[in-house]
Amino acid sequence: MNALAQLGMVSEHPSNNQAFSVPVSSEDEERKDYFVEKNGEKFAGTHLLVDLWGATNLDDPAKIDQTLCEAAVTAGATILHSHFHHFTPNGGVSGVVVLAESHISIHTWPERNFAAVDIFMCGACDPHLAVPVMQRLFQAKRLEVNEERRGRVVKK
Amino acid sequence: MNALAQLGMVSEHPSNNQAFSVPVSSEDEERKDYFVEKNGEKFAGTHLLVDLWGATNLDDPAKIDQTLCEAAVTAGATILHSHFHHFTPNGGVSGVVVLAESHISIHTWPERNFAAVDIFMCGACDPHLAVPVMQRLFQAKRLEVNEERRGRVVKK
Repeated sequence: MNALAQLGMVSEHPSNNQAFSVPVSSEDEERKDYFVEKNGEKFAGTHLLVDLWGATNLDDPAKIDQTLCEAAVTAGATILHSHFHHFTPNGGVSGVVVLAESHISIHTWPERNFAAVDIFMCGACDPHLAVPVMQRLFQAKRLEVNEERRGRVVKK
Repeated sequence: MNALAQLGMVSEHPSNNQAFSVPVSSEDEERKDYFVEKNGEKFAGTHLLVDLWGATNLDDPAKIDQTLCEAAVTAGATILHSHFHHFTPNGGVSGVVVLAESHISIHTWPERNFAAVDIFMCGACDPHLAVPVMQRLFQAKRLEVNEERRGRVVKK
């Protein structure tokens, strides 16, 4: 059983991120706006780039799959699909969890105890909540988190 | 036939990014270093965050899959897996192409003619070469490209 099935999160008909949509009225129809509004700024979603140094468990695709799925759910996201690949000879893992609210990806370099993670989430998910879940597995000695707001609407 | 099969790029035994590895000698064994060295800096890979505004063809997962796979190959990457999801009711697409050299992801908001793409590539791939291939499909009126070097090794 894969990590998605274990979490019971596989869905062929997932809900969209409507919970945080902002209705926009027009004369002809009610249109939805899926962008987020926070602290006076409107944008598509929050994208965290997380570099982990001095990390462990970087060569186990099953554990990484399970952890990233748990991290996604903890952040409030809905999992649609996950795929992980195990490289030889260095044991590195590349994988992604596709979410109704965007994605989480990881690429690991076990020979350097390094992993590059990105967590992109729209809607009311909080991608920062995913980080401690990953840290439980990876036990990184140093974490560098870079936050980008994607699709920032410039006010005129 | 999916985009990967059309491109003949599906491989169960892909080559790793060894072409650009830097051998590191030790007394016990020959270890490989998969980090890149460029302009005097050592790092894991280049991560482009691309915001596309005023874009078209954002609601067609098959076309987007095919285009992102073509973009990956143009950048010199090896495709391992691709997965695309089509949302209702807004027609948005979320998807990812997992590469031997990391990944390309996309999330689209057709109602705003907006797409958020990220292109993460290690080895000698040039992620910048992927952008014009995507632009042929999306015809964005404005592109914002933010480049991050992941896993930068700080010299002591």
